[in-house]
Amino acid sequence: MDVLIKDGIVVTMDKERRVLKNFSLAIEDGAIVEIAKDIKGEADFVIHARNKIVMPGLINTHTHAAMTLFRGSADDLPLMQWLQEEIWPVEAKLEPKHVYAGSLLACLEMLSSGITCFNDMYYYLEEVARSVAESGIRGVLSYPLLDIAGEEQGEKLLSEAEKGLRDYGNKDSRIKVFLGPHAPYTCSKELLLKAKELAEEYNTGIHIHVSETKEEVESFIKDKGMRPFEYLDAIGFLGDNVLAAHAVHVSREEIELMRKRSVKVAHNPVSNMKLAAGIAPVAEYAKAGITVSLGTDGAASNNTLDLFEEMKTCALLQKITTRDASALPAHEVLEFATINAARALGLDKEIGSLEVGKRGDVIIVDMQKPHLKPMSNPISHLVYAARGSDVSTVIVDGKVIMHEGSFRTLDVAEVCKFAEEEAFDLFEKAGKGDRLFRVEEVL
Amino acid sequence: MDVLIKDGIVVTMDKERRVLKNFSLAIEDGAIVEIAKDIKGEADFVIHARNKIVMPGLINTHTHAAMTLFRGSADDLPLMQWLQEEIWPVEAKLEPKHVYAGSLLACLEMLSSGITCFNDMYYYLEEVARSVAESGIRGVLSYPLLDIAGEEQGEKLLSEAEKGLRDYGNKDSRIKVFLGPHAPYTCSKELLLKAKELAEEYNTGIHIHVSETKEEVESFIKDKGMRPFEYLDAIGFLGDNVLAAHAVHVSREEIELMRKRSVKVAHNPVSNMKLAAGIAPVAEYAKAGITVSLGTDGAASNNTLDLFEEMKTCALLQKITTRDASALPAHEVLEFATINAARALGLDKEIGSLEVGKRGDVIIVDMQKPHLKPMSNPISHLVYAARGSDVSTVIVDGKVIMHEGSFRTLDVAEVCKFAEEEAFDLFEKAGKGDRLFRVEEVL
Repeated sequence: MDVLIKDGIVVTMDKERRVLKNFSLAIEDGAIVEIAKDIKGEADFVIHARNKIVMPGLINTHTHAAMTLFRGSADDLPLMQWLQEEIWPVEAKLEPKHVYAGSLLACLEMLSSGITCFNDMYYYLEEVARSVAESGIRGVLSYPLLDIAGEEQGEKLLSEAEKGLRDYGNKDSRIKVFLGPHAPYTCSKELLLKAKELAEEYNTGIHIHVSETKEEVESFIKDKGMRPFEYLDAIGFLGDNVLAAHAVHVSREEIELMRKRSVKVAHNPVSNMKLAAGIAPVAEYAKAGITVSLGTDGAASNNTLDLFEEMKTCALLQKITTRDASALPAHEVLEFATINAARALGLDKEIGSLEVGKRGDVIIVDMQKPHLKPMSNPISHLVYAARGSDVSTVIVDGKVIMHEGSFRTLDVAEVCKFAEEEAFDLFEKAGKGDRLFRVEEVL
Repeated sequence: MDVLIKDGIVVTMDKERRVLKNFSLAIEDGAIVEIAKDIKGEADFVIHARNKIVMPGLINTHTHAAMTLFRGSADDLPLMQWLQEEIWPVEAKLEPKHVYAGSLLACLEMLSSGITCFNDMYYYLEEVARSVAESGIRGVLSYPLLDIAGEEQGEKLLSEAEKGLRDYGNKDSRIKVFLGPHAPYTCSKELLLKAKELAEEYNTGIHIHVSETKEEVESFIKDKGMRPFEYLDAIGFLGDNVLAAHAVHVSREEIELMRKRSVKVAHNPVSNMKLAAGIAPVAEYAKAGITVSLGTDGAASNNTLDLFEEMKTCALLQKITTRDASALPAHEVLEFATINAARALGLDKEIGSLEVGKRGDVIIVDMQKPHLKPMSNPISHLVYAARGSDVSTVIVDGKVIMHEGSFRTLDVAEVCKFAEEEAFDLFEKAGKGDRLFRVEEVL
């Protein structure tokens, strides 16, 4: 076999949610081939995991990876000022190389903290794909679609998306292409339905922002006479392959619609809090049986890509909002970041849990740290105490990407330097070079 | 000189809140003796801090350190069930050795993530003091006072506290003793006033829980006919040496009282969220000019002791609560965890900022990490992107405690093992051994 992980605390996230003490896991040809007490045979790569947690890689279901370049450049601003004065003017200067640099940094950051798969929506998708291919992470890449500038814009983006659906079908098994109509208020009915048609033709998913802010929903109601999810249902858009990012401001009726149509949710608690967008009722979604998953959103509004942090914040936010300390217990939140996320991306046959036959997307969390002692409930520790930096090993598709802090696909220092240089280049082109901090210049 | 830190990004938190690029800092005899571009002379210990942030150690103004032993043993439970069924029955079995083990683990955990001073309230204070002395951290230790079981209980605790005030006065310059009347609802008027008198006599502070939960405030009003801060003011208890932990449920009039009496606040956002206690109006406190600081509370309700996490959560919680993304900007939150916290503990002449003449409580944060790139605003990165694990060097009272991940006062593995063993001992004595997770037993 290729990889053998020995004697770990295996948090499977399988149907019975088994936690197996001192179990081993074997990977061959990219897939999990055995999970057992003792595994016989030789392996090319042996990892001793005594006292460590072996678990499925975390899955980030909503981000804009390349926005790592914006990290910390503009915080603590009202949403519209932030977008109009800080984000959009810089995005207007984006070139493919910037997106490549930012995405590569994002892949490195995500892998470092145990994220083995992410769902992206951004410009220059082929550059994001390049960073996925090189870093070894798994990526669902959503072609952004919108036609707010007119029918021609929509057609152009649709044809690019269709080309991508054809191309990436066979190119790289770690890349899956989604359709990414930006939002109900930036896409015409026609474009939304064409995206849906295309998604069905290529048997893939749709990634769309819905009801992130109150203002957006109010203006939508004014315009269309109904709420966003009601509208999406009325035009026949909703379905089990639709992943709605945010879904913060919804009515009781919309929750019922989402349930009925098996819509999936990508919840972004940190970003929603930082931008003061609102609090998605995800404890209620979960109770209604809606598949909830977790996203970091872009680093511009987070400012990290860390699902450990997102899990804890998610649980805390639901508890304080419902004024119930027992709301959204740790084991449900862990589902959001693993098996539910896989389902949200239509990948639950491949990833999201540790089971024989699934792909080898596995992470190991080192529990020999002061903040993880004493060892009590492993699930509680993963959600309430562990940090992204406790991840010691990352395996994607059976390939060891990181082990004991050292990367095998990317040169960490080189990627950091490259991304920083491209960030300077981008911000200077946008006339905002002062947003970054140069250490060297003052020597 | 003893320690020389060279060429760092020095976030001083001084009166002008200067951020100095490529500056050096020298420590001699435990104190900061120079902060300058170039520092001449030889040092016993030289640290190169190019591209790293050099800043005051973080100060945790409310915790119950020994409760690290409870970490993850009982989560997601309603508050009263959690206390009555899980926490109190175990606390009833506490022996001095458990408190020592738990506190030692807490000191290790706090130092690891850049906390150089903490304010504690727990049983067996002398055991907490022992862990402070051995670990090298700075501690404000509050003698718990209550007389809910009768006058005799109060007298006994008061005389212990008075003895402690006398003893620790000269024993260890890193230890300061506070009076810790538990809460207005567990202390009689007489006890509260005796605590105040004693604090004045010994020129020290008072650490008290006030208005943590809604139920507690409602029952207090029923009992006394007024709100907790109103009552504390009416009996003449409030003053500028009173540090109120939580202060979640307050009226507008109480905020004005707190301001007028210069009461300090220890805000514990993670614990308040996890226990669904409520949301303290700290953006409002800050606007009113009240000194707000940050606490982690005990690990039983957090479940970590990490002020980086607390800073981010604090900012996010105020933004979402006020529905204003510009509420409580990063630089104010950083004040909460440094200079404000020092003021809250009456230690602002000694610690809380990097200034010549202050004690050498300094931490260094390594910014050469994917999640901290590109380098934009250092203050934003500290609050929104850095993790406790990014702290690479910790210096307390001029002594290097941790450098590049290796501890110089404690044996990390030994402390972890010791604390885990004592946690097992404690939980077994309480008939709750099943709350912990034994890896070895199933071999």
